[in-house]
Amino acid sequence: MLRSSFKTLSAKAAAQLDQELMSTGAFSIDQLMELAGLSVAQAIYKQYPPPTASKVSRVLVLVGPGNNGGDGLVAARHLKLWGGYDPVLYYPKRTKNPLYANLVTQLQDLDVGEVETLDEVKQLALEESTGLIIDSLFGFSFKPPVREPFKDLISFLSENHGKISPIVSVDIPSGWDVDEGPIDLDIKATMLVSLTAPKPCAKKFVSYGSDKIHYLGGRFINGKIAAKYDIQDLIAKYKDNDLIVKL
Amino acid sequence: MLRSSFKTLSAKAAAQLDQELMSTGAFSIDQLMELAGLSVAQAIYKQYPPPTASKVSRVLVLVGPGNNGGDGLVAARHLKLWGGYDPVLYYPKRTKNPLYANLVTQLQDLDVGEVETLDEVKQLALEESTGLIIDSLFGFSFKPPVREPFKDLISFLSENHGKISPIVSVDIPSGWDVDEGPIDLDIKATMLVSLTAPKPCAKKFVSYGSDKIHYLGGRFINGKIAAKYDIQDLIAKYKDNDLIVKL
Repeated sequence: MLRSSFKTLSAKAAAQLDQELMSTGAFSIDQLMELAGLSVAQAIYKQYPPPTASKVSRVLVLVGPGNNGGDGLVAARHLKLWGGYDPVLYYPKRTKNPLYANLVTQLQDLDVGEVETLDEVKQLALEESTGLIIDSLFGFSFKPPVREPFKDLISFLSENHGKISPIVSVDIPSGWDVDEGPIDLDIKATMLVSLTAPKPCAKKFVSYGSDKIHYLGGRFINGKIAAKYDIQDLIAKYKDNDLIVKL
Repeated sequence: MLRSSFKTLSAKAAAQLDQELMSTGAFSIDQLMELAGLSVAQAIYKQYPPPTASKVSRVLVLVGPGNNGGDGLVAARHLKLWGGYDPVLYYPKRTKNPLYANLVTQLQDLDVGEVETLDEVKQLALEESTGLIIDSLFGFSFKPPVREPFKDLISFLSENHGKISPIVSVDIPSGWDVDEGPIDLDIKATMLVSLTAPKPCAKKFVSYGSDKIHYLGGRFINGKIAAKYDIQDLIAKYKDNDLIVKL
């Protein structure tokens, strides 16, 4: 079977499925975000386990203003709780969404730090002590082109690929078109954690080479919804009680 | 180290900590319940893995009207999603709490069945095809004595110990006094999943013998809260990215 042989959900279908989970499915955004963010953290733990002994790996978390940013905040919390990771947050643009504010409070109570300026984040991204960068800037509702204040950041990450730490993108490599892939800026992610189901751009991601790491997370889809969106085979890939699966 | 060497939280302290998590801690009940219920399901998966091949283990889930019942509903959902378990719900007393209603909808969408009468639940508890009983009737806010409609059910489970499947109690063996242990009815649980921290009655539980299985779950306490409630050593028992630990 081809490595790229997996079903995908278009931007439109993903938005519909999400809406369905929260309306007739009766899930709350808090629940779904907790499970999604937890699966991102678990995929990171599996692929990039924390350094041993007293060393701690700094993880730069780039947090967008929407639900994708929320997933990143939840992931950062679990990584910090587990130990061995030192998340540092950067918000190019904050939101007043209370859910988001609550997630930030939870991180502040864990003494998770943040950087305020783009210059600082660039410097941290280039430092050797930064082990990983989590890209939770944009999710499946993003449409190119990338605008400021994100453009400068994403351009920097793209141009410094190889000099900066590996980037783990949450659901979508930020800047990519959800259905088409990179048509504007390309964050050059090393790992992608697709949530619920991969989006069409994930095919483009894995086609870039066997060193592109792809996980699926967000295991909360029931059989009826899976059948409706034709992703039963995808859901069947999960093993045992794992919340993630490497595709 | 003695097996019973673990810190506990009194009923009063547990209620305070819970309140603190949701006020200054900025956690939502949805978040905490999802993580707590998930950890119950993971402890069950670890201790009672699903039967192999095409066999499925029926799990009778006894659901109380409060948050303990909600934890049981979340656990049932994850067990069903993972496969190999066939949860069947029984509510001695329903609640109109919307959170609870949402969790029930999520289970109905997974075709999780329920039984309506006490006679049916007694029969199911005695059937060999029932592999496990989850007791999520009462949590840390319960005070004895047990009243109807719970009294008949708990008396039945107690009197038929050995004839019925092993009972996994969520946080508290239902009917026990949180601080004192069994002073009225005793559900005779085989396994206890303490959430956040064991309650004083957990000492009594493990003192009943080495065949009493005790897990800790609900890994969401930050260092400051742990220090305030003097449970740092307890939180430190978690390994790696595990959401549960066997005590």
